[in-house]
Amino acid sequence: FGFAVGAAGFLVLAGRQLRTARKAEGKINNKIDPEVPKVVTKEDLKAGDKKVYCRCWLSGTFPLCDGTHAKHNEATGDNVGPLIVSVKKSG
Amino acid sequence: FGFAVGAAGFLVLAGRQLRTARKAEGKINNKIDPEVPKVVTKEDLKAGDKKVYCRCWLSGTFPLCDGTHAKHNEATGDNVGPLIVSVKKSG
Ligand code: FES
Ligand code: FES
Repeated sequence: FGFAVGAAGFLVLAGRQLRTARKAEGKINNKIDPEVPKVVTKEDLKAGDKKVYCRCWLSGTFPLCDGTHAKHNEATGDNVGPLIVSVKKSG
Repeated sequence: FGFAVGAAGFLVLAGRQLRTARKAEGKINNKIDPEVPKVVTKEDLKAGDKKVYCRCWLSGTFPLCDGTHAKHNEATGDNVGPLIVSVKKSG
């Protein structure tokens, strides 16, 4: 009987952990502006600009990329990387 | 005894599922260019351009945003959104 109670308790805990993992699985931003309902970034660029933007939500210099995507890819088997935007020089 | 065997089997399966969920938890791109080691996008813009770029890795028009981030946020409690880049008109 003790074993059955122990097993049941374990199953409840395992289920809870599984649900937590599943919820965390879906969320990709656990760091940037958590108080904002939707993090939309607006950037104004001009001729000659070149910027590297983060798409992994882990950069210490968000919205710019600081290379942290490499650690994330290594740890998870993911393949994400930045967006590089170049603006033609005028003239 | 039958119960103990059943419970043990269940625990093994639950553990496996938990590990899978944990691995999937870390990965944020399960769709775009899976064969590429790192998805880096290079964009050349010119004066007057305005583009909306995806940062949720779920867009059907990646690297551009098609609004799919809204479904993702709803389903997971996340708060991700696009990067909007505008380039000044010259002159
Ligand atoms: S640090 Fe996020 S894409 Fe490079
Ligand atoms: S569809 Fe990915 S950010 Fe909008």
